[in-house]
Amino acid sequence: MKRVFDTEILCVGTELLLGHITNTDARDISELLSKIGINVKYHTVVGDNPERLRACVEVAKSRADILITTGGLGPTCDDLTKQVLADCFGLPLVLNEAEEQGLYEYIKTGRGLTPNTHRQALLPEGCTVFHNLWGTAPGCAFEAEGKHVLMLPGPPKECIPMFEHYGVPYLKKLSDELIVSHAVRIFGMGESRVDDLFADEMNRMVNPTMAPYAKECDCLLQITAKAGSEAEAEAMIAPVMAHVKERLGDVVYGVDIECVEEAVMALLKERNLTFAAAESCTGGDIARRFTELPGASLYFKGGVVSYVNEVKEAMLGVDHALLEEKTAVCREVAAAMAEGVRERLKTDMAVSVTGLAGPDGDGVHEVGTVFIGLAVEGQTYVRETHMGTFRTRSFIRRMAGNHAFDMLRRYMSGLPVK
Amino acid sequence: MKRVFDTEILCVGTELLLGHITNTDARDISELLSKIGINVKYHTVVGDNPERLRACVEVAKSRADILITTGGLGPTCDDLTKQVLADCFGLPLVLNEAEEQGLYEYIKTGRGLTPNTHRQALLPEGCTVFHNLWGTAPGCAFEAEGKHVLMLPGPPKECIPMFEHYGVPYLKKLSDELIVSHAVRIFGMGESRVDDLFADEMNRMVNPTMAPYAKECDCLLQITAKAGSEAEAEAMIAPVMAHVKERLGDVVYGVDIECVEEAVMALLKERNLTFAAAESCTGGDIARRFTELPGASLYFKGGVVSYVNEVKEAMLGVDHALLEEKTAVCREVAAAMAEGVRERLKTDMAVSVTGLAGPDGDGVHEVGTVFIGLAVEGQTYVRETHMGTFRTRSFIRRMAGNHAFDMLRRYMSGLPVK
Repeated sequence: MKRVFDTEILCVGTELLLGHITNTDARDISELLSKIGINVKYHTVVGDNPERLRACVEVAKSRADILITTGGLGPTCDDLTKQVLADCFGLPLVLNEAEEQGLYEYIKTGRGLTPNTHRQALLPEGCTVFHNLWGTAPGCAFEAEGKHVLMLPGPPKECIPMFEHYGVPYLKKLSDELIVSHAVRIFGMGESRVDDLFADEMNRMVNPTMAPYAKECDCLLQITAKAGSEAEAEAMIAPVMAHVKERLGDVVYGVDIECVEEAVMALLKERNLTFAAAESCTGGDIARRFTELPGASLYFKGGVVSYVNEVKEAMLGVDHALLEEKTAVCREVAAAMAEGVRERLKTDMAVSVTGLAGPDGDGVHEVGTVFIGLAVEGQTYVRETHMGTFRTRSFIRRMAGNHAFDMLRRYMSGLPVK
Repeated sequence: MKRVFDTEILCVGTELLLGHITNTDARDISELLSKIGINVKYHTVVGDNPERLRACVEVAKSRADILITTGGLGPTCDDLTKQVLADCFGLPLVLNEAEEQGLYEYIKTGRGLTPNTHRQALLPEGCTVFHNLWGTAPGCAFEAEGKHVLMLPGPPKECIPMFEHYGVPYLKKLSDELIVSHAVRIFGMGESRVDDLFADEMNRMVNPTMAPYAKECDCLLQITAKAGSEAEAEAMIAPVMAHVKERLGDVVYGVDIECVEEAVMALLKERNLTFAAAESCTGGDIARRFTELPGASLYFKGGVVSYVNEVKEAMLGVDHALLEEKTAVCREVAAAMAEGVRERLKTDMAVSVTGLAGPDGDGVHEVGTVFIGLAVEGQTYVRETHMGTFRTRSFIRRMAGNHAFDMLRRYMSGLPVK
């Protein structure tokens, strides 16, 4: 039978509790552990206080097999973590001569010279030393009372490379299993509908497993398998992935990508097409999002942010009478904006957005009413959305952008644009 | 004697333990709590598992006075947190009719209709309901067994506004001491220089206190006083504020605002001026940032995202020969872009950005070389920046935007634009 290792990550640092810094160490270590099939069951954060740290270590001993600490090493915190952990496991601290020598070398460079510096070379007896190539305080690992303890420094630039370099190989030896996970990204179907669609199957699944997650304006379905090798895990995932994709259909915009604009980028590359954007209520967010992707300039020529009507007329050629008659929030203006920017910027395709992102209305339309246009050679599509008056300005803007990218994706994939 | 409330933040979500997302909720709640004088002693993260959650709640009960949970509300997780917490404190869940009605309204919009949706209206008996204006799952607070429990949804866009709107006022009532805090926002001087400037004073200060914080592309100095009343705290802060502002000078762009574009908005209102933007490497981010502010359309007419040179020529009138001779990354092109967009959009002022955000260079300029222009009647200013090749694309884009807004602020304030 396979040994399962429950893991707790215990981060020591008052600055985390004050909200001055974000606990990226816990996230990054968790992500690395999940890749080698080790389950993280708890994250704990405690301040630079020996009594409270001691109590947290006792809790961790009672519920985890592997305890990974970050922070509280080094001279400024009096090597709090090392002292408390060694104590909790009944180990004395002994001087490590190689580390002491290293610290003297470091001190000679003139940095970090404090009366306490040399105390960093005191380490729990019998431990495996993690020599710090990215800073001064060494980390370490030891096994005691049936538990594995790993100690890492707090600063992410030291913690994460040390964990990758020493911690991962140390822990891999303990496990004979590995995890592979893929995220199916979905736009056009909500998380709860995805959940409903697969609820029965998900309840029955053990390995691989499947779970839906809501993102800001779309969602994903994560498929995860544990196996003895990567190939074996992939083979377990393959039929589930095929089934999920078939069942979800064309709302799937990609696997293991972060956002729908990445799917658009891949299609633009494949087909060697260009696009432009004419934006009213999104105020440049479509352009901004696409140009976050390196290499965007090959496919995105630019755009016009026509935040007021006179700019829609002057820069995009939208008809003055149309704006007077129907206001800027209508199907016809969305179409004229997309066509206008496509013509002026000489691109294969162009998208447009006009609508009300709120919080104030225009006295005619409800907040959340947004028209999204797509102009291509010989054809213009417009999608009408009503996102609901309770939505925030930033949600409405992001969602409108997702629709524009979704229309580009559908058009380039030969799907109905709708 | 003042009652001290030790607080534990307990975040429920397997995706946190898998490292899929970062625990920003714990950081943001901690930061808000520290501003109202409530001490956070522990953060804990546990997965979507009732037994382990129950055990964590028992640990929290033994060591904290206030327990704040995030996540595990809503239909996909079976309202795990609510059920377990109510159970741990011996409270039944009862149907809240107002919340049920609200959920029906939501369902009518056609989204989120699942068999489990209505179960979100079940809440611990006697609790204070936190109606969710940013999503569906309601939060709540109750007092039991001498502890205060607050439950919030997990998604940061719901969790943090709900905590600010309901949680902070709820907790403020528990304390007989009150904290007032003001943030002096600074652009054009780094956190470490601010720290150096006030280090001696800060070390001597007890109440009020002062601390610098680095933000992504600017920094702030937080001044905080504890007192029996708001007026008393404000009176303690006033002389410190005056001293700090005088010492920092014109790098201070505002107090208690979030970003430099807010300072620009206030000046535009005051002076009734309009502006436009011509963006190359920022790709629409200046327009996007300014139009995040409600009411932007009165002052921002629009802009052009001229991501490729042909658009700089066609839409902004930048001279072809100039682009050929000097490339797009130069002082003259920045000036021509700002002048071109100002003329075409008929605004009082216009800003422009052209530069290299990376990761790839152009073989001529270093990544991080960015020119920022400001055109006004009869005058054009250009600022040249070299942010360093080690900066990320997103940092360079954001910093370039900050420079553009800073130039607008300085011009409208009658300061040297530089």
